[in-house]
Parts: sequence; C-alpha cells; structure tokens
Amino acid sequence: MKVMVGGTFDPLHDGHKALLSRSFELAGRDGRVVIGLTTDTFASRKTHPIRPFDERRQDLEGFIKGKKFAASWIVEPLNDRFGSATDADFDAIIVSEETLPVAVEINTLRKEHGKKKVDIHQISCVLAEDGRWISSTRIYRGEIDVHGNLIR
Amino acid sequence: MKVMVGGTFDPLHDGHKALLSRSFELAGRDGRVVIGLTTDTFASRKTHPIRPFDERRQDLEGFIKGKKFAASWIVEPLNDRFGSATDADFDAIIVSEETLPVAVEINTLRKEHGKKKVDIHQISCVLAEDGRWISSTRIYRGEIDVHGNLIR
Repeated sequence: MKVMVGGTFDPLHDGHKALLSRSFELAGRDGRVVIGLTTDTFASRKTHPIRPFDERRQDLEGFIKGKKFAASWIVEPLNDRFGSATDADFDAIIVSEETLPVAVEINTLRKEHGKKKVDIHQISCVLAEDGRWISSTRIYRGEIDVHGNLIR
Repeated sequence: MKVMVGGTFDPLHDGHKALLSRSFELAGRDGRVVIGLTTDTFASRKTHPIRPFDERRQDLEGFIKGKKFAASWIVEPLNDRFGSATDADFDAIIVSEETLPVAVEINTLRKEHGKKKVDIHQISCVLAEDGRWISSTRIYRGEIDVHGNLIR
C-alpha cells in the first residue's frame, strides 16, 4: 500500500523513528512511503531553531537507508500542513497523537475535492524516561536526549 | 502484533469485511486479532432489531475461516463500548470513522489505568453505490444490500 507521513524531524528522535518504522511496516514489501519534510520557511513557525532542510533530509535518509526497509520511498518538501495529501492517490496516512486532527482534516478536504478518504494510522507517542512524550521541543530545551533519557 | 476490533456485525456487510481484513493484515502472519462482538443486551441499544449473538458469531467466524488469514484470532463478547481494550496488553485498535472517538477515549482510560496507549488505525468507511457509507441501519431500512448496491 502507499502511505504518507510528514514532519520536521529535527532532531530525529526515537518517536520519529517509531513513526517511520511503522510507516514502512504498513506499506509492506511492495508498498511505497512518501515522507513530507517541512521546508525551512514552513518549519520556522516552530518555537525553537530548526536546522536547514538539507541537513534534516540527510539524517532522515541516513536512518531510512540504514534500516533497509523493503518498500520504495521518497522525501517530498512540505510547504504547509497538508502537502499533497489532500489530492494524491494513496491509501493511508500515518500520524502521531499530536497530528491526528490534521489527518481528519485532510480527509474532510479530500471529500470536498471528490477524492477517496484515506485510512488514518495514529501511533502512540514514544515516552521519555519520565513518562512524558519525547518531543523535539523537550530535546531542544535540554530536558531529554533523542532517546528520551533525562539529562541531569 | 496483537490488534483489537469490535462491532455488532449484523448483517456482515462489505464495510465490516474491510475492517476485519485490515485487522488481520495489520496483525501480520504471527499476530493475533481479538474481535469483540457486542452481546445481545449491549446491541439492543441500536435503533433496529439485531439477530442473536450466536447467529452473528456464526457469520463472523464463517467469513474469517473462509479467508484463511494467517494470524490467530478469537471472538470475545463485548458488554460495553470498551470491552477489555482499556486494560488488555495489545498493540493497536482498528476502528471505523464512526468509532474513532471511542478509540481515543480508550487511550485516555488506558493512561489513567497506567497502561501503555495503543496505536489507532481508522479505516475509511466503504461507500455504497450512492457515495454514502454502507451501514447496517441502511441495510435494515432496505435502502442498500450488504455490498452497498441500491435496492430500487
């Protein structure tokens, strides 16, 4: 099946890795994964500094290549919350707990555009050592590392 | 992976079949599917008559056996909206567009109970010939058949 997933992936933490791994698992051996990576302009709305697109893309692609997933894949620039997901032909969108509402919105827009709704797979956020979510913001603040270990 | 899915499955229509097939696909070869089937008491809140549990179970099991899915499976009686999903150890819950809010509620309860949240997979409802959802209510009313063909 063809699946879509998106994010800023900076830094690439264990939550992102779970999201990507599940995306490839869902796509299956003959499937395809389209990974939307936010552009620097779009990502600049975040409350903390973001590394440039090419650096983030390099880390993302390094992780995917290292895993040797079976499905084919491509990284696409994401200029807004939806990217091509409101109109492209695909089967399922993979989101985190934070982005479930965006997926529901994408299906509403798809219906308005006369497109088939897609399946939504929400993965549970990976928890840090303290039982709270791993997030880029927490890593940037120096609370946790990319694996969710508390930095003391 | 171990997945859970639930419903009244009366009559077993193409929407139910898509939900069940996707559940087995997600569970994978070595996985397990727990199917909650509403009890007669719980199902009686529906606005139309429901066939007895044993008849519904027979149709459900007949469909699953016929498909020869790889994963192991079990049918459990479902006495309320949640069944064992608020406390059991499993990986993902499969829902339709109608029951997505129940899955989100289950994760909230799991967190309160100190249980790991599960992934949520929402499949898009299968559409009838007229572009509206296939539903048991519509079949009962005589609008469509179990495949979503309009009855004229």
